[in-house]
Amino acid sequence: MEEMKSYASMMLARIRQKAPLIHNITNLVVMNSSANILLAVGASPVMAHCRAEVAEMTAMAGALVLNIGTLQEDWVASMIAAGQKANAVGIPVILDPVGAGATALRSEAVRQIMGACAVTVLRGNASEIFSLGSADIKTKGVDSSMGLTEAGVDAAMRMAREKHCIVAISGEEDCIGDGRSVYRVGNGQPLMTKVTGIGCGLSAVVAAFCAVADGDFLRATAAAFGFYGLCADLAIAESDKPGSFFVAFLDRLYSVGPEEIQKGLKIRCSEVA
Amino acid sequence: MEEMKSYASMMLARIRQKAPLIHNITNLVVMNSSANILLAVGASPVMAHCRAEVAEMTAMAGALVLNIGTLQEDWVASMIAAGQKANAVGIPVILDPVGAGATALRSEAVRQIMGACAVTVLRGNASEIFSLGSADIKTKGVDSSMGLTEAGVDAAMRMAREKHCIVAISGEEDCIGDGRSVYRVGNGQPLMTKVTGIGCGLSAVVAAFCAVADGDFLRATAAAFGFYGLCADLAIAESDKPGSFFVAFLDRLYSVGPEEIQKGLKIRCSEVA
Amino acid sequence: MEEMKSYASMMLARIRQKAPLIHNITNLVVMNSSANILLAVGASPVMAHCRAEVAEMTAMAGALVLNIGTLQEDWVASMIAAGQKANAVGIPVILDPVGAGATALRSEAVRQIMGACAVTVLRGNASEIFSLGSADIKTKGVDSSMGLTEAGVDAAMRMAREKHCIVAISGEEDCIGDGRSVYRVGNGQPLMTKVTGIGCGLSAVVAAFCAVADGDFLRATAAAFGFYGLCADLAIAESDKPGSFFVAFLDRLYSVGPEEIQKGLKIRCSEVA
Repeated sequence: MEEMKSYASMMLARIRQKAPLIHNITNLVVMNSSANILLAVGASPVMAHCRAEVAEMTAMAGALVLNIGTLQEDWVASMIAAGQKANAVGIPVILDPVGAGATALRSEAVRQIMGACAVTVLRGNASEIFSLGSADIKTKGVDSSMGLTEAGVDAAMRMAREKHCIVAISGEEDCIGDGRSVYRVGNGQPLMTKVTGIGCGLSAVVAAFCAVADGDFLRATAAAFGFYGLCADLAIAESDKPGSFFVAFLDRLYSVGPEEIQKGLKIRCSEVA
Repeated sequence: MEEMKSYASMMLARIRQKAPLIHNITNLVVMNSSANILLAVGASPVMAHCRAEVAEMTAMAGALVLNIGTLQEDWVASMIAAGQKANAVGIPVILDPVGAGATALRSEAVRQIMGACAVTVLRGNASEIFSLGSADIKTKGVDSSMGLTEAGVDAAMRMAREKHCIVAISGEEDCIGDGRSVYRVGNGQPLMTKVTGIGCGLSAVVAAFCAVADGDFLRATAAAFGFYGLCADLAIAESDKPGSFFVAFLDRLYSVGPEEIQKGLKIRCSEVA
Repeated sequence: MEEMKSYASMMLARIRQKAPLIHNITNLVVMNSSANILLAVGASPVMAHCRAEVAEMTAMAGALVLNIGTLQEDWVASMIAAGQKANAVGIPVILDPVGAGATALRSEAVRQIMGACAVTVLRGNASEIFSLGSADIKTKGVDSSMGLTEAGVDAAMRMAREKHCIVAISGEEDCIGDGRSVYRVGNGQPLMTKVTGIGCGLSAVVAAFCAVADGDFLRATAAAFGFYGLCADLAIAESDKPGSFFVAFLDRLYSVGPEEIQKGLKIRCSEVA
């Protein structure tokens, strides 16, 4: 899809030129890696979770990331306050439901956040995302943990329509859709699952792309996924072991440009039947 | 000790096949590195410290790590709740008493945790471990900060008997014992002390080995120490400087297999007189 | 300035020999990187923020770092308690006002901390530092975000006299002064701004130099800046991309010695008119 290649290149250039401020309320494990990933891409990360300052910080930002790993109860109130401010000032909200479905605290936190503010993009792996759906969606999603089946894509698109947000699922082939159009991304490497915070970092990069998207959040999210996976494809050529792979991956996030995108981006789009 | 070589290889294969879930309630400095270390070895880390979800998380795990660095009072309650759940479901508990002896808060936290739940392995450096012992043990331990003397090993074994747990002390030569048998590990590098979180990461790797040990926690802990030190021995051949050493170390945790273990593992076992 | 070269070499040797304990109450993003940076330089980092132990920890330390990133209200009380203990036992206090000026919470936290305890060195970038000054200083500082103008240096020195502390501003050319003498450091690389925690790590390294300075904190701070920037100058020769640059930077912090300092340190000193 040639059009996505030039779009992704244009968006990347825009991030590097504007350095949008990305406000992250994220988990303790990945704060450092998410900040480094955003800096490498060209965005300006800020991490702030204190109820007393989150609204002020969000008001200055180009996008907001909410990530529920290592959750504490008082952080949920901060996430909701930030999310409502993001809605008020009209910036996109990316929600990463880390561990949703694993414990009641996390599933309930997602319900509260999505009940209190409008989420633009819900990004996670299949088990996290489908745990948030209705009974029917959960069933369809169950078999999809190893890459989405067509039934899994259908379930994801139904969820997008139910939740009124973009659903973006990482997997062997990524699936991003708003319930009407669906993008599938063939970039990415299995080794990404052997480095902590790579998924959370993708949510942050989606935020950076959405921050400069002028409202076209679906294409921006697909472009973010493609670019991110492409950087992994190039990094794996330098190292197939997790320590040096992550170093090479950060280097690629910083250095990849239109030429590599032109050669390597693998995104296709289709309409939902 | 040929038998330990094949045992360590077998355990490592089992971790990589089963990917046991390791629940970590650990300090803010090392959350990222412990997660990456566990992923590299082949385990599945989860970090969760909120009182509202720790028991639920522990119930799904194969082992529990409690680490008291960057302690806050409310985390101790979470650690105890998780520890008691671990005891109830019969999974091993690894306690890393970071900074015990340095402040009253930390020493008291260890006392509370060990009073409220059964600890399987107590892993730390000599000064941390001996600070938890009786007056006699403290005295014997004082001189042992630079590698354990025979009196230091005796003190460690007495502590193991007193506390009814495996005592595992990192040092120039590591010492792991249950009060009756003692393993000494000759693998490892001084440069490990120049990278933060390497000790805490070892506690996490001990948890991964214990999670697949079928109850033989003493041998599993010794095997974890030997494997971990061996990865450092191989990494130092790539770099003797801390930044690139840690990258190489993560790579080794991921790639070392039976062949390297056969060549390089240095563990010997003896009975306590 | 030959004299600064031998001074910096001497201070570095002293850190590596004495391994001073540096107590950090710092933000969640950089705890890991600050610890690794301090270890690489040769110091002994400890991170502890709980009100119940901070005074005890500070009393054992050679210097205290207070850093207000990812602030929570209860951490301010811990910072003040630690700062007052540092004043009482006579060790230097380095304050890093991350994000001061961005939100009321952070600006107010700096005011509270500086009102309650004596700060030895205030280190940040120009916008953070000048946000803390009087109206006149703010105006003068506004234009200085891209390297300090002479008016910016004047404003910084006025602030040093007003606040009775050393003001140390990172930028294209760093500026460190006590209001009477000013040091300018030409070492350092723009890529440092593309890795999170490099600025916060500098505050920690300033603490390590001050811990062995026998009261000559101005020269020690200037030496720390020069050494730190020099390590970046040498690392950039190995890689101009952020992932591998940071690895090389940590390696340099560990390995740079008198020879490299003699060749590459760029510090000049002048008196304030």
